[in-house]
Amino acid sequence: MRISPLFTDFYELTMAQGYFLNQHNPDVVFDMFYRRHPFNGGFEIFCGLENLLTALSELQFSTDDIEYLENLQVFEKSFLNYLKDFRFSGTVYAFDEASVIFPGEPLIRVHAPLIEAQLIESLVLNIINFQTLIATKSARLLHATRYGRILEFGMRRAQGYDGALHASRAAFIGGAAGTSNTLAGKEFGIPVMGTMAHSWVMSHDTELEAFKKYAELYPEASILLIDTYNTLDQGIHNAVKAGLELKSVGRKIGVRLDSGDLSYLSKQVRRILDEAGLEDAGIAVSGDLNEEIAAQLIAEGAPIDTWGVGTQLATGSPDAALTGVYKLAALKTTDGLKPAMKVSNNPDKMTNPGIKQVYRFYDSRGTALQDLICFDGEPQPSGEDITVFHPTMQYKHTRLTRYASAIPQLKIVMQNGNPVQAFPSINELQEKVIFQLKSMDESYLRLINPHEYKISISESLKDLKFRMIDEYSS
Amino acid sequence: MRISPLFTDFYELTMAQGYFLNQHNPDVVFDMFYRRHPFNGGFEIFCGLENLLTALSELQFSTDDIEYLENLQVFEKSFLNYLKDFRFSGTVYAFDEASVIFPGEPLIRVHAPLIEAQLIESLVLNIINFQTLIATKSARLLHATRYGRILEFGMRRAQGYDGALHASRAAFIGGAAGTSNTLAGKEFGIPVMGTMAHSWVMSHDTELEAFKKYAELYPEASILLIDTYNTLDQGIHNAVKAGLELKSVGRKIGVRLDSGDLSYLSKQVRRILDEAGLEDAGIAVSGDLNEEIAAQLIAEGAPIDTWGVGTQLATGSPDAALTGVYKLAALKTTDGLKPAMKVSNNPDKMTNPGIKQVYRFYDSRGTALQDLICFDGEPQPSGEDITVFHPTMQYKHTRLTRYASAIPQLKIVMQNGNPVQAFPSINELQEKVIFQLKSMDESYLRLINPHEYKISISESLKDLKFRMIDEYSS
Repeated sequence: MRISPLFTDFYELTMAQGYFLNQHNPDVVFDMFYRRHPFNGGFEIFCGLENLLTALSELQFSTDDIEYLENLQVFEKSFLNYLKDFRFSGTVYAFDEASVIFPGEPLIRVHAPLIEAQLIESLVLNIINFQTLIATKSARLLHATRYGRILEFGMRRAQGYDGALHASRAAFIGGAAGTSNTLAGKEFGIPVMGTMAHSWVMSHDTELEAFKKYAELYPEASILLIDTYNTLDQGIHNAVKAGLELKSVGRKIGVRLDSGDLSYLSKQVRRILDEAGLEDAGIAVSGDLNEEIAAQLIAEGAPIDTWGVGTQLATGSPDAALTGVYKLAALKTTDGLKPAMKVSNNPDKMTNPGIKQVYRFYDSRGTALQDLICFDGEPQPSGEDITVFHPTMQYKHTRLTRYASAIPQLKIVMQNGNPVQAFPSINELQEKVIFQLKSMDESYLRLINPHEYKISISESLKDLKFRMIDEYSS
Repeated sequence: MRISPLFTDFYELTMAQGYFLNQHNPDVVFDMFYRRHPFNGGFEIFCGLENLLTALSELQFSTDDIEYLENLQVFEKSFLNYLKDFRFSGTVYAFDEASVIFPGEPLIRVHAPLIEAQLIESLVLNIINFQTLIATKSARLLHATRYGRILEFGMRRAQGYDGALHASRAAFIGGAAGTSNTLAGKEFGIPVMGTMAHSWVMSHDTELEAFKKYAELYPEASILLIDTYNTLDQGIHNAVKAGLELKSVGRKIGVRLDSGDLSYLSKQVRRILDEAGLEDAGIAVSGDLNEEIAAQLIAEGAPIDTWGVGTQLATGSPDAALTGVYKLAALKTTDGLKPAMKVSNNPDKMTNPGIKQVYRFYDSRGTALQDLICFDGEPQPSGEDITVFHPTMQYKHTRLTRYASAIPQLKIVMQNGNPVQAFPSINELQEKVIFQLKSMDESYLRLINPHEYKISISESLKDLKFRMIDEYSS
């Protein structure tokens, strides 16, 4: 689906007209970054880049769009004519999609004329904030379940059509094994999965009949929902009967628990299945799950094979939004590109000025050590010791020694409005997430009270930043 | 945008094939309802009905959709042929869109053959859960600000493209005065609004120049953002200069505060504006607002005219989802339509069986007294005293006396797949919300610890419900 450039905050258009009429449209650089971890976590997964780049490359006002703007009686004819021919012509640098990322790092760097860079702000943030939030939630679930099998079941509680569709994409990239959203299966090639609903059971004369009919139809994929009437008194025993029939023809069942105490019930159900000779029957659970509940169930030894996670995975509840922002980093003047920064009374809201690169340092086993934000032109660290600085506390610095490599994270992904290369497949993106998670010390991935991964700034960046703060303050 | 019927949980399709192949496709009745108040609130606003009915009336599998399903190798040719011709032919009853609603009430009642009723489940829930959540959040903000001017600024943190678009619609219906989402303005006719960004200020040589340029361009709508450098030392004074120039040509400015303590700053800024003779300059605020913060600012007497609310309004944070469900209420058998219910160990998860209507009782001043869920065929209460029952506690009942009227809430909105009448305009929907809020005692609208509005069931419904529970339990 092509996204209209009207998908922008109205002030972007009024400001754009201002720049246009004042003939003030210098080349600029904007950074997209976020300030805080969602979910009280310690890491995030960068997601949505392919959708963003596709949208940017297709961005064009339709005749309808221009008419709508004209009718608002706020825009001049000359500016509307400019919009008619508007295409995004900028150059974009970004982290690889599916990278592990941290607050404060420039994730996307947009080089474009000011008007273009502004008009895309809301679009950049909308796509990246949402998908990054959901991919992160999914990766947290993956970690909580020790790389368990997670199914994303959230469409019925997701935030609208696209909230569901792209939640499925992001959840899969973050590590989910599949989705219940059939359209997401078609659009993105994600495996689609499901079990049965209570209404299937209720619309048959008996629970046993409902199970047997389903097992006949789907002998390869029969996960029987056993809590419609009473899980332990009835549901599991009917499932065993259906399971033994399937076993006799060389197939197997699974069961799903959707209510009650999942730790207690899964253990009881496991015992009953095993005693009946159905050791290969899997147990799926669902019902208001999240990563904390999953971690608790794992800690209690609940014998759960499949985790159906709906609402909280598809909406990123309780946070519901990543706090991504898009800020001016440099502006072309008669003296060339000049660094820009937002100075604020709140040091955490100050931005890092200039055109920047991010390096991730690894040890010899491939474990990530820390990240460094520096100017794009600074030489790539290649083994020598370097002094790095705290991003807001001027006096704090440490010496970075004995690293094996420093890998630049921002790569060119779009040149003059065109994506520079084919996008990785969604399976490659998921593999990348898993590879990246395994390159992090576990302490950074902890669900609660994680170890804070260090993001430093280079000495040159520190010097410029605090010089600019001094200038503004004087 | 036409929504594909693939926008459904995969198990709906596998169950549908089961019903189809087993030639078990009886007429059924499903209820959509929700179980709990979001936001610890006391009321909700029903929203999304127009979008749902439009989607249902257009529902059709494309050739692509059928090919995708075929390639999954799960579906038989005969079932795929059935899907090719699939149209939703059901009849739907619903509350008026923009009604005040409460947990447990059937909001939408779908009469259709089982396969159709099931295939639309995820769609019904996706649309209604989301828009109801956001309209409710918006109405809570309206109440918190004492019918203040609320602008929805959430698109950059919303959950995807459609999460933003329909959040704007729902927020407007719930009482917001406008949105920053230009596309929502075009699609729904919502007023679009905005101020300026920090980048506007930063891309000019001085703050004063940035303000003056904007005021020249938009003399009718200049809301100056005064916190880019320092609100009280600099921003407000530059705004006053620009404001006095505009005043001299008969226009006025507004200012926006986006950081710092909004109570303290708004009072200081008000004083400075007033002392400069700019008494008519409005003060807008923004920055992680929600209804609790707004209520606190109002309580402190902060002189705020306009509330820009972004993330929490557009995402319904911290809840992020309404817990709407869609449950079988009746099923045609050889003996006619037979009531169905879900029996659960948890009394709150038991459903109300049968085909139901909801009456809202009013006193003579038009204030809502309570709601009653009864069978559709029961006579409309017309002034006589009646005994009504608690929905889950069998022994609890009260006598309903001295009401002036009882108005049925569920009306036919779709017959045989076609909407029965034109939809109200979005302005009418907003007016309806405001009218309905004013028909509720304030105690039910309280943000925190609200008075619980009473939802009872009729004696006949109570009798059937507990008889069915006894039958299942025996």
